[in-house]
Amino acid sequence: MSEVLRLGLAGLGTVGASLIELVDRHSGEFSLRFGRSVSVAGVSARDRGKNRGSDISALRWFSDPVALAVDPDIDVFVELIGGADGVGAEAVRAALSAGKHVVTANKALLAASGQELAELAERNGVSLNFEAAAAAAIPIVKTLRESLAGDTVRQIYGILNGTCNYILTRMKQESLDFGSCLADAQRLGYAEADPSFDIDGHDSAHKLAILSAIAFGTRIDAEAVYVEGISSITTADLVAAEELGYELKLLAIATHTDTGIEQRVHPAMVPRGSAIASIDHVTNAIAVETAFAGQLVLSGPGAGGHSTASAVLSDIGDIARGISVPTFGLPAEKLAHHQVAEIRAHEGGYYLRLTVFDRPGAFAAIASRMAEERISLESIVQRQRAEGQNDSGQHDPEAPQPVILITYETNEAAIRAALKKIHEDGHTAAEPQLIRIEALG
Amino acid sequence: MSEVLRLGLAGLGTVGASLIELVDRHSGEFSLRFGRSVSVAGVSARDRGKNRGSDISALRWFSDPVALAVDPDIDVFVELIGGADGVGAEAVRAALSAGKHVVTANKALLAASGQELAELAERNGVSLNFEAAAAAAIPIVKTLRESLAGDTVRQIYGILNGTCNYILTRMKQESLDFGSCLADAQRLGYAEADPSFDIDGHDSAHKLAILSAIAFGTRIDAEAVYVEGISSITTADLVAAEELGYELKLLAIATHTDTGIEQRVHPAMVPRGSAIASIDHVTNAIAVETAFAGQLVLSGPGAGGHSTASAVLSDIGDIARGISVPTFGLPAEKLAHHQVAEIRAHEGGYYLRLTVFDRPGAFAAIASRMAEERISLESIVQRQRAEGQNDSGQHDPEAPQPVILITYETNEAAIRAALKKIHEDGHTAAEPQLIRIEALG
Repeated sequence: MSEVLRLGLAGLGTVGASLIELVDRHSGEFSLRFGRSVSVAGVSARDRGKNRGSDISALRWFSDPVALAVDPDIDVFVELIGGADGVGAEAVRAALSAGKHVVTANKALLAASGQELAELAERNGVSLNFEAAAAAAIPIVKTLRESLAGDTVRQIYGILNGTCNYILTRMKQESLDFGSCLADAQRLGYAEADPSFDIDGHDSAHKLAILSAIAFGTRIDAEAVYVEGISSITTADLVAAEELGYELKLLAIATHTDTGIEQRVHPAMVPRGSAIASIDHVTNAIAVETAFAGQLVLSGPGAGGHSTASAVLSDIGDIARGISVPTFGLPAEKLAHHQVAEIRAHEGGYYLRLTVFDRPGAFAAIASRMAEERISLESIVQRQRAEGQNDSGQHDPEAPQPVILITYETNEAAIRAALKKIHEDGHTAAEPQLIRIEALG
Repeated sequence: MSEVLRLGLAGLGTVGASLIELVDRHSGEFSLRFGRSVSVAGVSARDRGKNRGSDISALRWFSDPVALAVDPDIDVFVELIGGADGVGAEAVRAALSAGKHVVTANKALLAASGQELAELAERNGVSLNFEAAAAAAIPIVKTLRESLAGDTVRQIYGILNGTCNYILTRMKQESLDFGSCLADAQRLGYAEADPSFDIDGHDSAHKLAILSAIAFGTRIDAEAVYVEGISSITTADLVAAEELGYELKLLAIATHTDTGIEQRVHPAMVPRGSAIASIDHVTNAIAVETAFAGQLVLSGPGAGGHSTASAVLSDIGDIARGISVPTFGLPAEKLAHHQVAEIRAHEGGYYLRLTVFDRPGAFAAIASRMAEERISLESIVQRQRAEGQNDSGQHDPEAPQPVILITYETNEAAIRAALKKIHEDGHTAAEPQLIRIEALG
């Protein structure tokens, strides 16, 4: 390895361009802080001519990222292409196999192939660093992998997707509907043209699976994450949350339970005083519950070119300084095959919003179905609506009315069974809304 | 160095006892995570016979911590004695000189002699780790020293003393006075029998000086920290803060300004929506403003045996894994001699609570003195009191009344000059209360 740490940078979007800017601006500092200088020795992207705000004309150009990944004049391959498959993934494998350190922000790749890549990095004696893959510059990967390596993590939970948190914050603060907030998020660049990966919860699920593997020393298992998105959330739910003393958030939560690792991503009612309740807009936050350190909370911008580039540079700095830690904190073969705690076994309180035909006996029938499943109700509230009206604006005594039920602690299987029966009884006019209530520390 | 990492542990208070418990409980895990096992090979404390809840009878006992520090069967000296001088400091110097890594929670020692110790560690090729010295298990030292090594920190601020935050929280929430909250804190073990080190702000100042050195790459300079404590805070100030949309916190803040490094610890009005405003009771929080990563906030328990022990073990884990970083992030001789930005040059808004004789012309005279110093007033409010009464309960038109002034941005020198004149004019019956208003990000 030469005195200079030579980066091969594949992918020149906002993060890649920011990274070049950062390396340019701080090269003197890096020599001091890292004990050696850092330089971008080669780049690869789809379009060489595109204007990126930084001058790349002096940099060696590779049309093939795989060729860059294995180039003898590269020490670290920085992968900012993305995707679980395709050329980014191929280049990462090639780099590790060629004995190059890899720094990546590619959460989809880690979620799909983290175990294989950790083994590959280990066999070749190189680092696979990915601070930027979960919540950008929030140093949660380093905290779990290093700071808490001597402690025992019991649970991690947080807000891991800025797009969803932005939408929910605007819906709540301005009483706007989901669609218009999503449109604003797209206009402002907080959401992709195809927003489904974010709003359906998959982005959060990938990040959760990565963090969960480090936190619990288990093999990454993104397919075991139970996932619901936020597109069914209405302002009625946000108003109810407010009245009940909760904030409604897309929660990512992984818990070490007696029956295995429970990983979930779904909208949740979180108590107003809890660590993440006041995290608004595009900010991310992660709480870590440990046996000894207590509850640690880290928050910051969870996305953005500069913030993500800072995280990438943190990983590069570790390599420059010779800091080397196993990919998921343990030697890859020691990562445990964990039991999966299924969502059906989940226990907690529930918020249910039903759309009920306002007929005599409907309430009683619903309450009975709940009782049959041994579910105790904390409250049933029929939301105030202007008099039931039918489509032509006339009074309709049978028009469906929203009814909100809050249950005491029960389990998911019981709730699902009760809702199925209530629906079969014909009392409800639409799919019920089910939101889990979390008693977070 | 042997395969086992052998600890010499000096100081067996709650942190030391917790550390022994943690090492005992997790020794199998450590071998996996750190690649080598960890054991306590020797201990030293004042009283061998004291019951500590953990059995130390099988451990090698050293009556002299300095002898433990240099013992050939020790790889890492863990100093939990404390104190800027005395036997703890002496043992740390001896350990570093003997080529032993040192892990310490001793903020007073680092604040006083950090530069000298960093140079000593470097000369001997060993690590000096101190995550526990600033905010216990909140991984702020690692975040500044490693995660943000490639970024530029512009400001750090936070709540670094749990005792003070506990007292202010109780005073606010329960309208209690300072003295009774302090007594409760002492009864609950949150405050020392002699609480002055905490409540006068010196504990926060030591922590701030340590973090500031890493954040800005400067030589530690605890004497340059401007310090005020919280003993002058009254419920009147907390009520006013509430009404004005602020939280009143003991703020520790270090800023890289154009004229030098400004380090301050004092009560401050912080905007209700700011990152640390909702941090209550004994919790600590630190916000870091960076050029690229944006604003990161880390919070958690800032004290306690278990939490501090977890931080100590994090430092030990780094040594076991071969992670080595310069004490303050840069080679010691490269740490900059910084300019000190004096508090007199501080610019910001001010909250002033004066106790004014209620005579005609008093308001006008005060306002004139402010104008002479070019201070613009946002508001002057005479607090509602029952009619002025003298000591015998009769109406006294000249009884002093509390008057609260809020200024627009001005500077400390101007405020001090105005207050001096107002006092000399004879309009005030007591020392004015001055609390800085901070426009935090």
